[in-house]
Amino acid sequence: MSKPIRFNAFEMNCVAHQSPGLWRHPRDRSRAYNRLDYWLDLARILERGLFDGLFLADVLGVYDVYGGNGAAALQHATQIPVNDPLLLVPAMAAVTRHLGFGVTVNLSYEPPYGFARRMSTLDHLTEGRIGWNIVTGYLDSAARGAGKDRQTAHDDRYAIAEDYMAAVYKLWEGSWADDAVVADAEAGVFTVPERVRKVQHDGPHFRIDALHLSEPSPQRTPVLYQAGTSPAGLGFAARHAECVFISGPSRKVIASRVAAIRQAAARIGRDPASILIFTLLTVIVAPSDEEARAKLADYRRYADHEGALTLMSGWTGVDFSQLDPDAIVEHVENEAGRSALENITRADPDRRWTVREVAEHVAIGGIGPLVVGSPARVADELEAWVDETGIDGFNLAFAVRPETFRDVADLLVPELQRRGRYKTAYAEGALRQKLFGGSARLSESHTAADYRQLWQALETA
Amino acid sequence: MSKPIRFNAFEMNCVAHQSPGLWRHPRDRSRAYNRLDYWLDLARILERGLFDGLFLADVLGVYDVYGGNGAAALQHATQIPVNDPLLLVPAMAAVTRHLGFGVTVNLSYEPPYGFARRMSTLDHLTEGRIGWNIVTGYLDSAARGAGKDRQTAHDDRYAIAEDYMAAVYKLWEGSWADDAVVADAEAGVFTVPERVRKVQHDGPHFRIDALHLSEPSPQRTPVLYQAGTSPAGLGFAARHAECVFISGPSRKVIASRVAAIRQAAARIGRDPASILIFTLLTVIVAPSDEEARAKLADYRRYADHEGALTLMSGWTGVDFSQLDPDAIVEHVENEAGRSALENITRADPDRRWTVREVAEHVAIGGIGPLVVGSPARVADELEAWVDETGIDGFNLAFAVRPETFRDVADLLVPELQRRGRYKTAYAEGALRQKLFGGSARLSESHTAADYRQLWQALETA
Repeated sequence: MSKPIRFNAFEMNCVAHQSPGLWRHPRDRSRAYNRLDYWLDLARILERGLFDGLFLADVLGVYDVYGGNGAAALQHATQIPVNDPLLLVPAMAAVTRHLGFGVTVNLSYEPPYGFARRMSTLDHLTEGRIGWNIVTGYLDSAARGAGKDRQTAHDDRYAIAEDYMAAVYKLWEGSWADDAVVADAEAGVFTVPERVRKVQHDGPHFRIDALHLSEPSPQRTPVLYQAGTSPAGLGFAARHAECVFISGPSRKVIASRVAAIRQAAARIGRDPASILIFTLLTVIVAPSDEEARAKLADYRRYADHEGALTLMSGWTGVDFSQLDPDAIVEHVENEAGRSALENITRADPDRRWTVREVAEHVAIGGIGPLVVGSPARVADELEAWVDETGIDGFNLAFAVRPETFRDVADLLVPELQRRGRYKTAYAEGALRQKLFGGSARLSESHTAADYRQLWQALETA
Repeated sequence: MSKPIRFNAFEMNCVAHQSPGLWRHPRDRSRAYNRLDYWLDLARILERGLFDGLFLADVLGVYDVYGGNGAAALQHATQIPVNDPLLLVPAMAAVTRHLGFGVTVNLSYEPPYGFARRMSTLDHLTEGRIGWNIVTGYLDSAARGAGKDRQTAHDDRYAIAEDYMAAVYKLWEGSWADDAVVADAEAGVFTVPERVRKVQHDGPHFRIDALHLSEPSPQRTPVLYQAGTSPAGLGFAARHAECVFISGPSRKVIASRVAAIRQAAARIGRDPASILIFTLLTVIVAPSDEEARAKLADYRRYADHEGALTLMSGWTGVDFSQLDPDAIVEHVENEAGRSALENITRADPDRRWTVREVAEHVAIGGIGPLVVGSPARVADELEAWVDETGIDGFNLAFAVRPETFRDVADLLVPELQRRGRYKTAYAEGALRQKLFGGSARLSESHTAADYRQLWQALETA
């Protein structure tokens, strides 16, 4: 049987995420991003569509490269205002039973001790449906919120991240034994003290000498997501990630990225097939091809090119406000910028892109490709993406929210189900079990397992 | 008309809060503290009982003074395991319309920039029902989770807290003008950039050079709660708090504490009546006095004296495991410890307390007094507390959860309503409006208002 296709919904607790300007569409509910109603409705739609997860992006700063300040970002609401993503999860968990929640948290600005408790709390409240998208940030403006002049250099951030991961793995995996909590009312023993140990972490960046505050949650360590494609990011993903988000303009480009990730994992002894890889993509689907094209044409009337260039400037570090709309976009010096730009341009190495064309592309679905058509046409496309690249599924951005996701759930999912390429029911168990089968806990081959028996060796808390 | 009586429910995201051992009672649902169901049910009970708020305590460490380690705390589940309180709020907000949420967050372990966004997010999602209980911590074990050897000295913590408050006031009150967000689809303007300003804070402990990430929420600054009774704590409360939590063993003691708080506020120019004061108390109510006494006797069968002394040791810094149960409790040297102990003993200066008697007292409702009886008897008592002390209401601890709160909502509240001493409906508007009338925003006489017009004077973000 062909590999099943998996869907994540790519969302953010803000107005304009990957499709700037679409908040102005009459059917779009982005203005309600700060109200629980929107999120409860969205969660119900996604669970109806058997999405594996809702993936919540986040930034802790402003896109202020365009024009040298945050004015354009504010005007176009490109990821500002932006509220905290974690706080959406408990309410959505209360109205769903299976939907997973992959939440972005930037470890540069969260002390590990309290953060570890937050994620354990969410894993308890969701009954094992929480994932963490590990990021180290890319905006200097976020660093200035934390009292620094600029963010830490890229490769140093990954060194700090390694220390951070060791600290939180110890808390999640190594502090409480599985049988620590007995809740024995007769004996008057809630927790057996000898089965809980202090974490003693004395790393280059973080120090902890305390037990974890939460009892073991269904998954202990949340499902680990990562999105780095730089050499340092790739090594980090190979060591830590269970799910990797990538993006690219063509199946050929994506196939090579998938191969690179799986090879990096294999090199350090992990089963390369044990990493699920999702690529960014936006689906515009309608009952017929013609209706889908008309829907896209309608959406494009609300696309916001300056908003798109504001995002691109933040992602690339290039101030697009300084360029003529008809100028050809030249080579970008910095690595992150080159990578973001090539996600658009690399599909056809011979094509030259103007600034205006880049803006038009980014304005609906960001740097990911658009797939437009009837359920049959879109299903054909997605099958080809999966079969030719080795990806496991898609991180679906929205154009109009929640309409884009409702269309996927109600039109595309049934078509994929008819083809036997999409599940017809959720698997039982925790998010990790739904994704990988087996146990709710991280596998023994994962680096976090090294910290699992730590509690047996340390002194009593 | 006599002053209305207000209720807060005193809760915590853990097993044993103020009544250690009662988790073993057959009707107690403490084991479900880590499940959403419990909290949704509780929220509905409290809203039915027209409680002003649910007050969530928190600690980020372990009560490890008793016996010199955390073993007793773990065994008796005295506030360990303990999950994050903020994450309970969104789910409860989704099933209520009026209930307020006063959440304890220790500013020693939360960088102000991300914390300010979290509280703004909650104020948005609750539509203006969030409050913050400002604490600086009292457990060295919490400091060790943050890589320190011990917590910062008491008075220094308040100096750091002053700097922290200035930073978050600037973010909440001074970054976005009220008319910054216009969401004008026609003009393509979500936020008017000129109406948002960067916060430039360069304090002794915290530095921020960034705009607030969230648009103005209904209350901007959450309702501010505080519980300090030391001289430094009293000064802090007088400057910042809108609601103060106190505790004490008798009406006489409470009356003098209320007077001290109101005088401290008046000295710095605040209207002393503008601070709402709640005292800790536990109500055991049943249809008749006899049934209430029987209920208490039944509860006492599950009381846990070692758990109580574990809490007392943490609060006082005195290791009660070293004392004979029949020994008289002597004078405690340190200020916090003396204050905690006097909350029990000061009602009758001539009475001597043994360790056993202290444990027995603390085991149900902590250091607060117990009021037991029929609705009429309890209502008489509570009226006397309010009328003789000048308090505004009670911070009600539970013995059995949620039974204690259900009894209050269903038996005591109707009695107080009949007497005209309790509201019969919630006021409309934000939590601040429900508590104080007037505006959802902090009053112009509050110190935070000094930062309100800051955005007019600073350069564009």
